[in-house]
Amino acid sequence: MLTRPLPEDSGDILSALGAVRSRVKNKEPLIHHITNYVVANDSANAMLAVGALPVMAISTNEVEEMVSQAQALVINLGTPTTSLIESAVKAGQAANAHSLPVVLDPVGAGATRYRTDNALRVLREVRIGILRANTGEMASLLGHCSRMRGVEAGGKYHNVAELTIQASLTFGCVSVSTGAIDYVSDGKAMAMIHNGHPLLKRVTGAGCMVRSLCAAFAAVENDVFIASTAALAFFGIVAEKAALLGKGPGTFRSALFDTMFSLEESDFFKSLRVEVKNI
Amino acid sequence: MLTRPLPEDSGDILSALGAVRSRVKNKEPLIHHITNYVVANDSANAMLAVGALPVMAISTNEVEEMVSQAQALVINLGTPTTSLIESAVKAGQAANAHSLPVVLDPVGAGATRYRTDNALRVLREVRIGILRANTGEMASLLGHCSRMRGVEAGGKYHNVAELTIQASLTFGCVSVSTGAIDYVSDGKAMAMIHNGHPLLKRVTGAGCMVRSLCAAFAAVENDVFIASTAALAFFGIVAEKAALLGKGPGTFRSALFDTMFSLEESDFFKSLRVEVKNI
Amino acid sequence: MLTRPLPEDSGDILSALGAVRSRVKNKEPLIHHITNYVVANDSANAMLAVGALPVMAISTNEVEEMVSQAQALVINLGTPTTSLIESAVKAGQAANAHSLPVVLDPVGAGATRYRTDNALRVLREVRIGILRANTGEMASLLGHCSRMRGVEAGGKYHNVAELTIQASLTFGCVSVSTGAIDYVSDGKAMAMIHNGHPLLKRVTGAGCMVRSLCAAFAAVENDVFIASTAALAFFGIVAEKAALLGKGPGTFRSALFDTMFSLEESDFFKSLRVEVKNI
Repeated sequence: MLTRPLPEDSGDILSALGAVRSRVKNKEPLIHHITNYVVANDSANAMLAVGALPVMAISTNEVEEMVSQAQALVINLGTPTTSLIESAVKAGQAANAHSLPVVLDPVGAGATRYRTDNALRVLREVRIGILRANTGEMASLLGHCSRMRGVEAGGKYHNVAELTIQASLTFGCVSVSTGAIDYVSDGKAMAMIHNGHPLLKRVTGAGCMVRSLCAAFAAVENDVFIASTAALAFFGIVAEKAALLGKGPGTFRSALFDTMFSLEESDFFKSLRVEVKNI
Repeated sequence: MLTRPLPEDSGDILSALGAVRSRVKNKEPLIHHITNYVVANDSANAMLAVGALPVMAISTNEVEEMVSQAQALVINLGTPTTSLIESAVKAGQAANAHSLPVVLDPVGAGATRYRTDNALRVLREVRIGILRANTGEMASLLGHCSRMRGVEAGGKYHNVAELTIQASLTFGCVSVSTGAIDYVSDGKAMAMIHNGHPLLKRVTGAGCMVRSLCAAFAAVENDVFIASTAALAFFGIVAEKAALLGKGPGTFRSALFDTMFSLEESDFFKSLRVEVKNI
Repeated sequence: MLTRPLPEDSGDILSALGAVRSRVKNKEPLIHHITNYVVANDSANAMLAVGALPVMAISTNEVEEMVSQAQALVINLGTPTTSLIESAVKAGQAANAHSLPVVLDPVGAGATRYRTDNALRVLREVRIGILRANTGEMASLLGHCSRMRGVEAGGKYHNVAELTIQASLTFGCVSVSTGAIDYVSDGKAMAMIHNGHPLLKRVTGAGCMVRSLCAAFAAVENDVFIASTAALAFFGIVAEKAALLGKGPGTFRSALFDTMFSLEESDFFKSLRVEVKNI
């Protein structure tokens, strides 16, 4: 495992990563989710497993009031409808007013014009803290020719690192691109997370859990780059442990929640495979 | 375990509690759910595990016709929208016309004005049989200063018993307040259920399963106080057994469904920790 | 186990059944779902477990564009609303234009007039490839006096085989009627699938997984009768294996996904109990 201290005075990045997870448990941050109906249950269970509190509220009549009580907001455009987009923008702007971290997952951007346009609208009208996407979605948002198959990245992008950095610079946020290796960039530094497991591709909601974890971790850690990297490393390690416990996608999924709940800090450090470098 | 016979001729409360669960299995009551998208799947699975039949119908075009075939109605305001509230009122009034028990879960009342107002509207326009809430939600509905964090009760109410009785008297229904100890009151008697397990706080949908169970039990037992108490005790005992089988929130959740399905009556009686007293 | 070659030149039906499942794994077909919020998660997980890619898109603003990238479309009317029906028709017609197989599940047809009417509308306006229904739903669509209890078939139909054939001839599609024995007919041949397990009645979403599997199998096999029969046999066998691994509905459900993922072809053939005959 290679690590490097970040340029700014963020101290030892390793211990920073480990500390975030415990802080979630202690602070029990409330995470407002505007999310699709397919995986809302998984996201909620991930939050409870790590000690955060999920709340789902989608009506324009209440999203502003609800988000004002939260410590972070997750916007997922997985099954977009006109009213969900309105709620997302309204909640996002309220979160901005309260200086809360906002995580955006532009699910399926590139697959349809409607999704691309809506994701770009949210990026324009809301200050996003963390943009989590697969390579196809990220390329679409950057105006590159995208290769999507539904909500999956359909091709290989040889320069994922560059794509991630470009997204960070273009949208002024931390960008997280998930795949066999996960990349995190804030435009100045880059983290590559090698933790993870192929079974994650065989359960729905894995990406959504990651997104929720990014929000929960950012709710207790001001350095969004550290928070995102910690969340991805944490989830990747959880997946590795869960794969040892599960016999296939069904029991693996149950084991994901068990392990999110019980992963020891020492296990976390032993398993961490993260590279951080300046760019 | 302390028990007392109820004042009215409800006979031996212990055997009454035990009998309800078997009756669900035999009668397979149809339970109409108007519920949020986060936990609809969990509610449906809980119903099937105990032998009841769930049906989800939310369009104002059909809720009246659907509820006319059901034996109980569950209204959950977990992700309220204007159209869902209309459906809830319409279905509730139809259920009243058919003298069906209606269970209301005012999820997040107190967290936003929209939720409080909608819950109070349903309580005004529909005759509710069972009001299930956490202490924060119950306090909000009673006009007390509430302490909510999203949909979680955010503070400790020292007088939960009194709160539960007050809700019962104010809204003219059986009120159920869930927490480390569950309280059930019909304004005349009070049951305290000591069964349960802390892991229930680490899975989403536990409250929703309880609510569905209350409806299924009330569908086969006219004494709504007995039905609610039996449902809470049953679920608390199921959680205790499931905690022995699960290794964390994920496998615990699977074990909940297994145990709802298989809990023996003798195990139920051995594990029951319920106090009932007149008030 | 009885099998007969089909009249047309479909060769050995046994090997045809076995081949479909492997083809799904190799081709990773994209399956567009317009489905209800109760079981969307289960459907998505079933798709991922067998190697297909699910995509959920419901807005009329994007369903046509999304379905044009898919290899099959699933329409589920489980929680019908006016906007969902519009999307279903729009997506269905686009799927027809692209000659994609469309699977329709008229959940709860017969339970309310609204559901029956909407299901008949979809059958009129979209060319359906596979109609999957329980006997009550099928009878309702055929104008027979139906016996529904919510979304469950409420009575016994002695002549399920005839009902299935009639549906096939009336609606010009392959019809699949699921129950203790599953029947599949294309109006010329009839398959009876004896595989399955009673625990399937104790989990929600089983019918929805079957429907998604029919779509995924039809996406890689032009003979829709073969595809449907293979999907039902596959899922029935998966249920039999999963029942040996699970201790009740909760762990059974996890085992369903494990087994969908890992079932070996040799196990498939050893367990297959399907009769096929000309009619």
